Amino acid sequence: MRNEQRKVSVALGSRSYEVIIGTGLLASLGQRCKALDVGKKCVVLTDTHVGPRYADKAAAALKAAGFEPSIMMVPAGEAAKSLKVVARCYDGFAKQRLERKSLVVALGGGCVGDLAGFVAATYLRGLPFVQVPTTLLSQVDSSVGGKTGINIAAGKNLVGAFHQPRLVLCDVEALKTLADREYRAGVAEIIKYGIIKDPALFKKLEKSLPKILARDTAELLSVVTRCCEIKAEIVTADETENGERASLNFGHTLGHAIENTAGYGRYLHGEAISVGQVAAAYLSAKFTGLPDTEVERIRQLFLLAGLPVTYKTKPETRGRLFTAMQHDKKVSAGEIKFVLAKKLGEVVWGHKVVDADIHGALDFISG
Amino acid sequence: MRNEQRKVSVALGSRSYEVIIGTGLLASLGQRCKALDVGKKCVVLTDTHVGPRYADKAAAALKAAGFEPSIMMVPAGEAAKSLKVVARCYDGFAKQRLERKSLVVALGGGCVGDLAGFVAATYLRGLPFVQVPTTLLSQVDSSVGGKTGINIAAGKNLVGAFHQPRLVLCDVEALKTLADREYRAGVAEIIKYGIIKDPALFKKLEKSLPKILARDTAELLSVVTRCCEIKAEIVTADETENGERASLNFGHTLGHAIENTAGYGRYLHGEAISVGQVAAAYLSAKFTGLPDTEVERIRQLFLLAGLPVTYKTKPETRGRLFTAMQHDKKVSAGEIKFVLAKKLGEVVWGHKVVDADIHGALDFISG
Repeated sequence: MRNEQRKVSVALGSRSYEVIIGTGLLASLGQRCKALDVGKKCVVLTDTHVGPRYADKAAAALKAAGFEPSIMMVPAGEAAKSLKVVARCYDGFAKQRLERKSLVVALGGGCVGDLAGFVAATYLRGLPFVQVPTTLLSQVDSSVGGKTGINIAAGKNLVGAFHQPRLVLCDVEALKTLADREYRAGVAEIIKYGIIKDPALFKKLEKSLPKILARDTAELLSVVTRCCEIKAEIVTADETENGERASLNFGHTLGHAIENTAGYGRYLHGEAISVGQVAAAYLSAKFTGLPDTEVERIRQLFLLAGLPVTYKTKPETRGRLFTAMQHDKKVSAGEIKFVLAKKLGEVVWGHKVVDADIHGALDFISG
Repeated sequence: MRNEQRKVSVALGSRSYEVIIGTGLLASLGQRCKALDVGKKCVVLTDTHVGPRYADKAAAALKAAGFEPSIMMVPAGEAAKSLKVVARCYDGFAKQRLERKSLVVALGGGCVGDLAGFVAATYLRGLPFVQVPTTLLSQVDSSVGGKTGINIAAGKNLVGAFHQPRLVLCDVEALKTLADREYRAGVAEIIKYGIIKDPALFKKLEKSLPKILARDTAELLSVVTRCCEIKAEIVTADETENGERASLNFGHTLGHAIENTAGYGRYLHGEAISVGQVAAAYLSAKFTGLPDTEVERIRQLFLLAGLPVTYKTKPETRGRLFTAMQHDKKVSAGEIKFVLAKKLGEVVWGHKVVDADIHGALDFISG
């Protein structure tokens, strides 16, 4: 099993790149970056959790390949995704005298990737960047596809840019040391792929989830690769979310609102969209013909993954949640839109749901 | 002469748009924006100089066409191009509940356009925006081509994005009330087009500059249109500055450094690049064969426009200027690069110039 590798191509013309999924990949970071035709200067942007474990290794690999790397550390979690940290990164980049061809390496989970991607997208109007995701969620979802973003007081990811990475390195070995809660949060996005695009994956998860939760390497290689394939397919079809890419937001309308109103970090993203997907499944049964039995299968799979499927709210205290949903990027003409499933593996997006029905979904998940 | 119009197309595939140059254009803003297939909500982003004069007119035109406009006012000048103001705009956009199809209208000079464009590029990962430039400099240069940006302590425009407008409306009548100094600053960019691409324009300017300085409407329509044509041609050939677009930076390597080290606002951009172009002309004579007589013609034309052609520095106090040039976006592998002219109308870019020769150029402009 040593150094096994799989490849997924993201075909976007001049912005095409490869996602490598495997073991023992960090050592190859320098050589792989060298192949990208970038400058010598590079910054490894990481956080205070991941940095102490991997940053020196990453920098050493880059140095061995002729790069001049420096390491930049930001706070762990959503705290990093703020304009304040963005400003600090800009100043750090200027101090390091980064140039237009200098490389930014995002080493960490989804938050580091989102932040580093945004900073790379906007410094000197765009620097090349490489994603080295170290969490399950970032490996199966956020590192692929070029969405970058930060949070402002009014909402999560309200500020951002589309900026494709030049390479994504998913070392599944990094997942072995992940905290249990964070690992399970990543499973929520894996289940999502099953719901929106791949009933076979969903069925497989119903059987092999225990193996995945045990972080079996072969199982991880297989499932991370499959998720990256689905993500690549969707992003290739619709890079800037004018259509199908919206399907990836299944569970996210409510999920983002929960994250936002509960205070960032209170719910991990994966936890919030777990509840959000159960609510979306309920609405799918009501509006798009998803059988009740499938709603239950979905709920059970999240339960099996140890993810939250309830979020208690009283009708009279839901104002902030609705306000947050109004700020969702998917809102248009003031209407709150949901991604809903017609059946497992097939979703529709942009489905307008009125407040009364959203209350119904919130009642459903209030347990 | 009432409501005369000219059109310049910027051909960039799905990002193509038109530049309209004319008189009495503000009244048509609403109808023209309506044709863009955008949402109803829109923000007119303007500054404290331009806003009081034109914002209500713009908003009224938008309202009459069915839009729901709000007006957002930022400080005038480079002060607007800061992360602090960017953050305020994001919060304002969230408060207005802007959606992905909501329109941002930049009403003002280059600073407002750069700021509004950057905010539009990054809010919800990109909102449509329209440029309504009200200064000569923004009409002939910054409003066309999609470069947006803000300043950080280390340098001007170090942070930004490429984000093409959906429409540019250049009402030359707005130029009639422009302060004399700001008007002349715009002439510096017009002269630049002559040097880098159009010897006939340069020759014409040598004759008709007095008319232009008198803000003759017919002359303005002609020269603004010609500049937009040249800009459109260059941007179409090289949208993200991998080649020819760099030619637009003639005079800018030193110009930006002067703006930066003199303190923003001390020198207007047009004034700084006026001196910068004289220095670049000197270096062109030294390295790329520009005849000394042409260097003098260039210097004389800037003088005729009432623009600065000298910038006094002593060799021992040039450290900050060099540091600023090291931060220039055109730097690669640590080397300072200049755009140099082979002859009037033909330039080369990426020309490496060593410190000793930069000192020579600084001696030349020290008068």
